[in-house]
Amino acid sequence: MKIQNAKFSFKVLKTDSKSSARVGQLSTPHGVINTPCFTPVGTQATVKALSGEDLREIGVELLFGNTYHLHLRPGEDVVKKMGGLSRFMSWNGLTITDSGGFQVFSLAKTDKKRGAGEGEAELVRITEDGVKLHSHIDGSVHYFTPEESIKIQQKLGADLILSFDDCPPHPATHSHVKRAVDRTHRWAKRSLSQHKKTKNEQALYGIVQGGIYKDLRIESAKFISALDFEAIAIGGVAVGESKKEMLKVLDWVVPHLSKSKPRHLLGVGEVDDIFEIIERGIDTFDCVIPTRLGRTGVIFVSPSEGNKKNKFRFDITKAKWVTSKLPLDKNCNCKVCKNYTRGYINHLFRAKELLAYHLASYHNTYFLINLTKKIRQSILENKFEKMKKEWLV
Amino acid sequence: MKIQNAKFSFKVLKTDSKSSARVGQLSTPHGVINTPCFTPVGTQATVKALSGEDLREIGVELLFGNTYHLHLRPGEDVVKKMGGLSRFMSWNGLTITDSGGFQVFSLAKTDKKRGAGEGEAELVRITEDGVKLHSHIDGSVHYFTPEESIKIQQKLGADLILSFDDCPPHPATHSHVKRAVDRTHRWAKRSLSQHKKTKNEQALYGIVQGGIYKDLRIESAKFISALDFEAIAIGGVAVGESKKEMLKVLDWVVPHLSKSKPRHLLGVGEVDDIFEIIERGIDTFDCVIPTRLGRTGVIFVSPSEGNKKNKFRFDITKAKWVTSKLPLDKNCNCKVCKNYTRGYINHLFRAKELLAYHLASYHNTYFLINLTKKIRQSILENKFEKMKKEWLV
Repeated sequence: MKIQNAKFSFKVLKTDSKSSARVGQLSTPHGVINTPCFTPVGTQATVKALSGEDLREIGVELLFGNTYHLHLRPGEDVVKKMGGLSRFMSWNGLTITDSGGFQVFSLAKTDKKRGAGEGEAELVRITEDGVKLHSHIDGSVHYFTPEESIKIQQKLGADLILSFDDCPPHPATHSHVKRAVDRTHRWAKRSLSQHKKTKNEQALYGIVQGGIYKDLRIESAKFISALDFEAIAIGGVAVGESKKEMLKVLDWVVPHLSKSKPRHLLGVGEVDDIFEIIERGIDTFDCVIPTRLGRTGVIFVSPSEGNKKNKFRFDITKAKWVTSKLPLDKNCNCKVCKNYTRGYINHLFRAKELLAYHLASYHNTYFLINLTKKIRQSILENKFEKMKKEWLV
Repeated sequence: MKIQNAKFSFKVLKTDSKSSARVGQLSTPHGVINTPCFTPVGTQATVKALSGEDLREIGVELLFGNTYHLHLRPGEDVVKKMGGLSRFMSWNGLTITDSGGFQVFSLAKTDKKRGAGEGEAELVRITEDGVKLHSHIDGSVHYFTPEESIKIQQKLGADLILSFDDCPPHPATHSHVKRAVDRTHRWAKRSLSQHKKTKNEQALYGIVQGGIYKDLRIESAKFISALDFEAIAIGGVAVGESKKEMLKVLDWVVPHLSKSKPRHLLGVGEVDDIFEIIERGIDTFDCVIPTRLGRTGVIFVSPSEGNKKNKFRFDITKAKWVTSKLPLDKNCNCKVCKNYTRGYINHLFRAKELLAYHLASYHNTYFLINLTKKIRQSILENKFEKMKKEWLV
């Protein structure tokens, strides 16, 4: 089951007998990704509070970068000069970048909320050509078009890149989402055409949109699937939909995607979600959650201490942990759980010490990487359903 | 040349032929410190932005904790329950704590500057018995006396501890410093007597004070030397004196100290200072400088890029480093210099990413540890004078 770009291939090694869950290998010119694969996010060319060595130690196989942020700072030309995103950050593993679309349209939403008054410069202006916006850092003007997004991503040099899409806010009416889907499709063709202009070692993902509307999601899945993308991403599920709606979207979309192409789900990473989306046939997925939660003292924990009700989380900053000699998670083999107590990490958070954010982010990232590895194994051993039940009782 | 406490010993392995510089081994029940030894500071039970593994990897042999801060948060009882400072922070190496005196008297100085008005509670009240103060964290009331400081340090459980001293502000008149020295001596006896009340595995340092007054420094050196301390610390040199004055103080004090006792200098750690104080017979010294400077983007660098004029420092946040592929220091073998470019670290500082503070603190700490190791080697090889000249041309 080869995908179009000869330098990339995706093999499904095993599909679960009772669901769409599958184990695969996504091969790129610079290495292989074992799927299902959780992809931590390094927005500004760093997974917050973690180093390249940390990521390798944790067992990360794919790292997600944000084109919008990297374009603004340090800029794609700097990243290119420094050898591309992966080398620049001394990660030296595989990377995927988004198109900038999600951030650009999030800014537009913020702008609307603020209500740009008469004579006041709009932060974001959207046309058929693309998006003109003012940097949130210094106010400088930037243009994002499908062509520009691909060119920026080529300079950033990730192994996997995404086409530029129109991300409507949530909730939005059917007609609003319809317009956004149609534009996403036109932009998908333009992204693809720009991608094909140069021979390169990147694989391009088309993006399925359509909000919470079944007809639009199916239309988008069919349209994007029919194009010559190496892989497919599903967008717009982490913006405001409930979990139930997110899963319905996957139920509508996945059956219309080619089984031979890898599927990325954008912005999902809660513990229970991971089981549900893998069950529905997702191969890779990214989320800021392990580091974002980690920096506030929210720690992932496995069963039986962790369960669906507490979202597999606890708050390490609570007074009850002051003299606890327990590790963060008794079932975890990460460096933090082997070496540090809850009592010490509680102290670090209370004293606002930088080490707190590092230790919590490290454990949480390891936790999701390791959970995904175990799920992979469970699929190979025909035990996915059993494992899911054990976790989500 | 045994020191008093049978569980501790100090051996001078080699003294420089042209100066008082010496190489020694300070043996404790939990391990050996090779001197001269730079001692990083872990104020709140962490060297800021560095983990226990980092410290071991860097080659740290002794870590400095602050009794005042640890008493306030998490409290010595918590630290004791958690197995003592070294285990609590998962450092598992040797530790030294100060007496709290320096911080307490710094607070008093701040209080005076603010000028406590009538009816306003004073932050700090100093009597012959000790010091009463309000926590800078929550305003709670705490007493520090010589006996209390030793008891707190016993609970913190460091290998090396310091007697409680009166630290006058700088500048101060001769009569003011004389009063502080006399009190420091009375408090030294009380600290010692409290220390001897219990059998324990700690060595107690007496502290020499006396400001910038030769007669007082010599008087204090003689007085403290004559007492039954296992080791001697020299205080009050990093508060406000110029470098010249600091070195004069060492020239006055060291000749009056027993050659068989280890000598700690409190609060010193600039690159040129390290050569000068070791030359004058200092064995161990602590300083927050590598991490404090590191967090602002100031990086230590070796000759020829580093020199006395630029204080062996450069500013990594400058625009000139944006696309530099150089390591922070081309002569450094630390993890950061092996893996990361100036360009990347420049970006991390500009983007205010937490990883910036970690990488800079790691390199700077390694730099001083490694410099001190090289100096140790140079003394053993009769090349100290040569090495000093090469660095401080």
